Amino acid sequence: MVSFRSSSMFLSKHVLLGFVLVGFLLSPCCGWSYADDSDALHAILQDQAKAWNRGDLDAFMSAYWKNPELTFSSGGETTRGWDETLARYRNRYPDREAMGKLTFSKLETHMLGQDAAFTLGRWHLDRKEVAQGNFTLVWRKMENGWRIVHDHSSSTPKPPPTP
Amino acid sequence: MVSFRSSSMFLSKHVLLGFVLVGFLLSPCCGWSYADDSDALHAILQDQAKAWNRGDLDAFMSAYWKNPELTFSSGGETTRGWDETLARYRNRYPDREAMGKLTFSKLETHMLGQDAAFTLGRWHLDRKEVAQGNFTLVWRKMENGWRIVHDHSSSTPKPPPTP
Repeated sequence: MVSFRSSSMFLSKHVLLGFVLVGFLLSPCCGWSYADDSDALHAILQDQAKAWNRGDLDAFMSAYWKNPELTFSSGGETTRGWDETLARYRNRYPDREAMGKLTFSKLETHMLGQDAAFTLGRWHLDRKEVAQGNFTLVWRKMENGWRIVHDHSSSTPKPPPTP
Repeated sequence: MVSFRSSSMFLSKHVLLGFVLVGFLLSPCCGWSYADDSDALHAILQDQAKAWNRGDLDAFMSAYWKNPELTFSSGGETTRGWDETLARYRNRYPDREAMGKLTFSKLETHMLGQDAAFTLGRWHLDRKEVAQGNFTLVWRKMENGWRIVHDHSSSTPKPPPTP
């Protein structure tokens, strides 16, 4: 009996140790304990705006997932793929005058797990014809850091022209 | 020595058992093994469209997270809160004629974890003045099922009126 009891205690102690070790190792991957990376994501967006404002579209695009599955939704159209999204930007903003000065504001990020998040915010293009609106970004944490995997940007309707 | 070796084997066997048990219990919560709930989410959206088309805004709204933190982005404005989103719908679609017939299409869902996902799609309102566009939905799996926690809907610009 003594031998049985001590073996049973030994079992429970070490199974418990296994539980604790694995629980500790896995805790960063589960809902209950993921980090809030909002500041890191907002820093990426502020860097992106700086890149835009020095006319560096390649640096601007580095925040996006470099993958054919990147999706960019705007004006009722969906652009698919990193190359296609860059081409769309080049086409719509052919020069510095068209690019204007970009500002992001009201950034608000919600974590969706340890490696996913979404950000709401406003974009504002200061140029001859001011443009602005809302955006929603979906992020994934890749091996090389956080990347935007989906962008839905929409425009605040312009007031009708004065008669 | 015999006693020591047998105790050491006992330890490793049961720590291993602990690892396996905890790994099995936690596997559904980690990146490597979450289920694809696309079909369930698309079914919710088709039910939502049916509710709209029988004029049942309350049933339509049941797909949204009933929480003040629900965000609904459209036309450059962000509506915050479930009640406010319902009020916006009631205001913009005061009767069946304004509501028209709603169809969702091109639904495409990407899982972001075991309890998060986003869906891209198109909405189309068949009525006197047709309206249509893209949407992005962010979902969370709550205790009572999947709910939309964020909706960004935008409109395809209307062609300028014929002169």
